[in-house]
Amino acid sequence: MAVSNQSTQYAYGPRVDRSSIPSLYPPQTLKPYTPPPTGIDNLGIKSTDTFVIVGVGEVVVNFKGFVRVARSEPTSTDWNTSCVYTNMFEMCMRGQSEEIGEVIVTLNPDFLSTGQLNTPFGDEELENPSKACRMAVGAFFSVPRLGKVLFNKEPLILTIDDVKTIPPAGNPGAGLIHRMLPLFDREDPEGTAVAYLTALKFAMGTYITEEEIQAIKDGYHPA
Amino acid sequence: MAVSNQSTQYAYGPRVDRSSIPSLYPPQTLKPYTPPPTGIDNLGIKSTDTFVIVGVGEVVVNFKGFVRVARSEPTSTDWNTSCVYTNMFEMCMRGQSEEIGEVIVTLNPDFLSTGQLNTPFGDEELENPSKACRMAVGAFFSVPRLGKVLFNKEPLILTIDDVKTIPPAGNPGAGLIHRMLPLFDREDPEGTAVAYLTALKFAMGTYITEEEIQAIKDGYHPA
Repeated sequence: MAVSNQSTQYAYGPRVDRSSIPSLYPPQTLKPYTPPPTGIDNLGIKSTDTFVIVGVGEVVVNFKGFVRVARSEPTSTDWNTSCVYTNMFEMCMRGQSEEIGEVIVTLNPDFLSTGQLNTPFGDEELENPSKACRMAVGAFFSVPRLGKVLFNKEPLILTIDDVKTIPPAGNPGAGLIHRMLPLFDREDPEGTAVAYLTALKFAMGTYITEEEIQAIKDGYHPA
Repeated sequence: MAVSNQSTQYAYGPRVDRSSIPSLYPPQTLKPYTPPPTGIDNLGIKSTDTFVIVGVGEVVVNFKGFVRVARSEPTSTDWNTSCVYTNMFEMCMRGQSEEIGEVIVTLNPDFLSTGQLNTPFGDEELENPSKACRMAVGAFFSVPRLGKVLFNKEPLILTIDDVKTIPPAGNPGAGLIHRMLPLFDREDPEGTAVAYLTALKFAMGTYITEEEIQAIKDGYHPA
């Protein structure tokens, strides 16, 4: 399985050049209703994903881990009208299930997961409107016990509403799924779906350290 | 703009080999709760799409046109457990708006729009359960007055519930959109979105003739 470099990745939206922007670790102070300068947010994340695995049935997995998200300069210093573009370029979440054992979620290097934060259409005239955050994600779901890596061909759309700070640390969010998002087997990518993601609820965490990130990558399952 | 051939198309799901299946025109009789033999469905379609176009604002367009969908053999003769895979390989819808003039929706040849019909998880034991239909679509929205062709990088997910016949002729459906689906400019594909699709409601029509299909392709706007 080839690991794509940036130039061959299919990007779901605009790329953020992360070569010269600071990587942000704790402590950080978030100012509400204030578009922040560009940066890379290193954040914890929790997610509860519901799968239907063909031949196994429904499996609910609670994940914990981290994301690294490059944020563009805001398009304006004005909160109400500003848009911020994001690229999630690294993620690792680990979960355990009785039915299928450990599941590890990482990014699919064939895709650049991209998103944006902006004020919902029609809310720009409000006083301190909440913003909405969306991101299109291509992921790998590794299931060592099954010897399989599952992946989505349609991006998973992660949504966060009621965003008062950027990044939306601490906000809950949801995957945009109507009944099912097909997941395919990396060893049989042209075959039919071997699993479906049927629901996804998540919560963004706060800033985490390089050491915590490395530990999660090395196999540590955050408590 | 290159027209992709099948081998370089990114397929959102399984391909249906349409080389040896019959193309179905009216009249056709649909049997409820009965998985039909494989075929190509030539169907009318209506859609009401709401766009927010950057610099223009909200535009609602009512479209009419056709779709051509290749359907696989059902995976089983049993309605309750059968799955049917679909590929939409041709579409043309035409609409008019005061703000931006004519809009023509066709398929993006870079993607193979794919879908499936199956019984919702948990409903297989019901007597004559309704099926659910989903399709991931890559589209072009041509706007001659603006001199632009807009396209989506994330597939548009079309959903139809309460499906009692295959194809679901006459069923209403909806696009799965949370606030916005970004649309990009074919002339600046790496740029930021130039429009957003914010809502989509559609209704599948019944079988239509080759002559009607050709007329729509040639510029006829169905009444």
